[in-house]
Amino acid sequence: MKTRVIAPKTRLAVGIVFIGTLIYSMATGDMEHQLDQPTIAERDSLSKRESGVTPTSPMRLRMEQFIKSKQEEIVRALERVDGKPFAIDKWDRPNGGGGTTCVLQDGNVFEKAGVNTSIVYGTLPRAAISKMRVNHKALDPDVESLEFFAAGLSLVLHPHNPMAPTVHLNYRYFETANSDGTPNAWWFGGGTDLTPSYLFDEDVIHFHRSIKDACDKHDRAYYSRFKQWCDDYFSVKHRGESRGVGGIFFDDLDETEKDQESLFSFVQTCLGAFLPSYLPIIERRKETPFTEKEKQWQQLRRGRYVEFNLVHDRGTSFGLNTPGARVESILMSLPLTARWQYMHEPEKGSREERLLSVLKKPVEWV
Amino acid sequence: MKTRVIAPKTRLAVGIVFIGTLIYSMATGDMEHQLDQPTIAERDSLSKRESGVTPTSPMRLRMEQFIKSKQEEIVRALERVDGKPFAIDKWDRPNGGGGTTCVLQDGNVFEKAGVNTSIVYGTLPRAAISKMRVNHKALDPDVESLEFFAAGLSLVLHPHNPMAPTVHLNYRYFETANSDGTPNAWWFGGGTDLTPSYLFDEDVIHFHRSIKDACDKHDRAYYSRFKQWCDDYFSVKHRGESRGVGGIFFDDLDETEKDQESLFSFVQTCLGAFLPSYLPIIERRKETPFTEKEKQWQQLRRGRYVEFNLVHDRGTSFGLNTPGARVESILMSLPLTARWQYMHEPEKGSREERLLSVLKKPVEWV
Repeated sequence: MKTRVIAPKTRLAVGIVFIGTLIYSMATGDMEHQLDQPTIAERDSLSKRESGVTPTSPMRLRMEQFIKSKQEEIVRALERVDGKPFAIDKWDRPNGGGGTTCVLQDGNVFEKAGVNTSIVYGTLPRAAISKMRVNHKALDPDVESLEFFAAGLSLVLHPHNPMAPTVHLNYRYFETANSDGTPNAWWFGGGTDLTPSYLFDEDVIHFHRSIKDACDKHDRAYYSRFKQWCDDYFSVKHRGESRGVGGIFFDDLDETEKDQESLFSFVQTCLGAFLPSYLPIIERRKETPFTEKEKQWQQLRRGRYVEFNLVHDRGTSFGLNTPGARVESILMSLPLTARWQYMHEPEKGSREERLLSVLKKPVEWV
Repeated sequence: MKTRVIAPKTRLAVGIVFIGTLIYSMATGDMEHQLDQPTIAERDSLSKRESGVTPTSPMRLRMEQFIKSKQEEIVRALERVDGKPFAIDKWDRPNGGGGTTCVLQDGNVFEKAGVNTSIVYGTLPRAAISKMRVNHKALDPDVESLEFFAAGLSLVLHPHNPMAPTVHLNYRYFETANSDGTPNAWWFGGGTDLTPSYLFDEDVIHFHRSIKDACDKHDRAYYSRFKQWCDDYFSVKHRGESRGVGGIFFDDLDETEKDQESLFSFVQTCLGAFLPSYLPIIERRKETPFTEKEKQWQQLRRGRYVEFNLVHDRGTSFGLNTPGARVESILMSLPLTARWQYMHEPEKGSREERLLSVLKKPVEWV
């Protein structure tokens, strides 16, 4: 790993697709707070110094520790696959939190691979609290602002080989604090989904099977519920097609769903399932021979990926419309290269046509 | 020119970036009208059959005739530059109107070039009328729906050579009708702007000089006013940079600006100025030698073009979020290929850096 420290002016948060950008905009506001009370950032910093992170530490610290260790594990595993090191950008937030952006560009296997963690402490203004109350009744509607914490890991891997699928993953934890520093509302969100240019049923089945196994360990209803949520969300609506062959997606999982320990354990299992769900696929496909025409089809599919991310992804568009957001972290998810061809239509009976038919009507893979 | 007729199911409007997509969504609704009154589409069709288009014909027919003849002239001129023919898609709307989409892909000079005309007759629902009344008080607020007409020509040319700039142009006319078929509100809109990857001051000055000369023939205040409007509109806000080196942009020019004949004459002059503004540039730059690195910089700039069109362009995002819109016509403006590199920064003192500094602070070119 090559590590570099980003200049202060680019030390801005983000990297968590959904809430990171939202949080960023909120957190750049005034960080003032009651001077008689330490912030949760200060409490957490003290607690880490004094006793480290243990199973009885606040969930904030446990989630942070968990995603950071997973980031290292994933980055090391992907470096072994690719043979080239990631470039590592570490950044700190002046009032607590920070993150690490790991990018591998123009590697041997990956055209572009990004693995980010982001830890943010900040203050939610009243308007944001009102919006969030729709899904989280525990949020106090009668305060002018609330301290919050957010931690997330997100990754997007775009391989060179058109036979090897793009994969996306994001898991995150969000918490607000009462004025005495105790937790107020909290929730987990995240998911993972696969975007192939060419369908290998065994790959897609393996990916879904891995996720289903992870879900089933916690709740037999999760997989089908969160697969549906994923199909609904990752839809390139203007094309009438899914971005890829899906996976799982969920958000706002709080105490109305299950207790915090159970949900943390679920997210741990999901994130733990990532490498086994993807590595066998990339190992199988990274050196599959392909033609120039197949590479071009991949590039057209990359164009669709860009369309989804720039037109429909709520986190991305919110982030890009937030003045001063760290654009490079938000757009790290875009492929290195993409292509748009007027009125391109795959040949009848071709593999390209079969992919399109699956994207137009999501399949039950397991 | 190779001409093909599109299958009925793809015979859907659009092609006018700003209003075309809006219109499409409105026009796909019910085309019912009072059975005792002919629609303006029927009136226009009859009038064309009986007496052709003359200087005393309604502006609708004169604008249609004008943009169609200009489209042919521009397509012929670009075919001479490129050496390859455009593919021509003609489509009709069942209730009046239609259009022609001309695309040249992977040509000798142009990576992708599109020149579209679009003529649309339809019905505006009450909600759309309310929105439009903000800029057009002549619109009757007390009706359930209004017939409308829209005609526009739009083009985007992306050359292969990174030394040759991308150019965009769009001119359009919009009109609503009273129930007796007489014109109610009307306005012109449009503009043209240049997007180079490498700055050649003489090219940019020539482009702006041509437009300024066209504007000055009609109003000495137009150029600076519409240049400012262009700089404001074609801004990749999340990057803090302009899409390119600008040109002119205007909208909603109606009787509060000048009489209809004067404005039509202005739009005619502007559109007439297009070929002389761009052909000398493309002729000068189409065969300039370039390096692989310069080609990659062009691809990164193409990425920014995609970002503007998908994230910020009002017409595009409105169109893409309109169920059933003709996506291929809307996204014809995207380049054939584009590139995104994490944290790319041009070298100090390089030509790439100079372009960025101009994009961050628009220049007065003439």
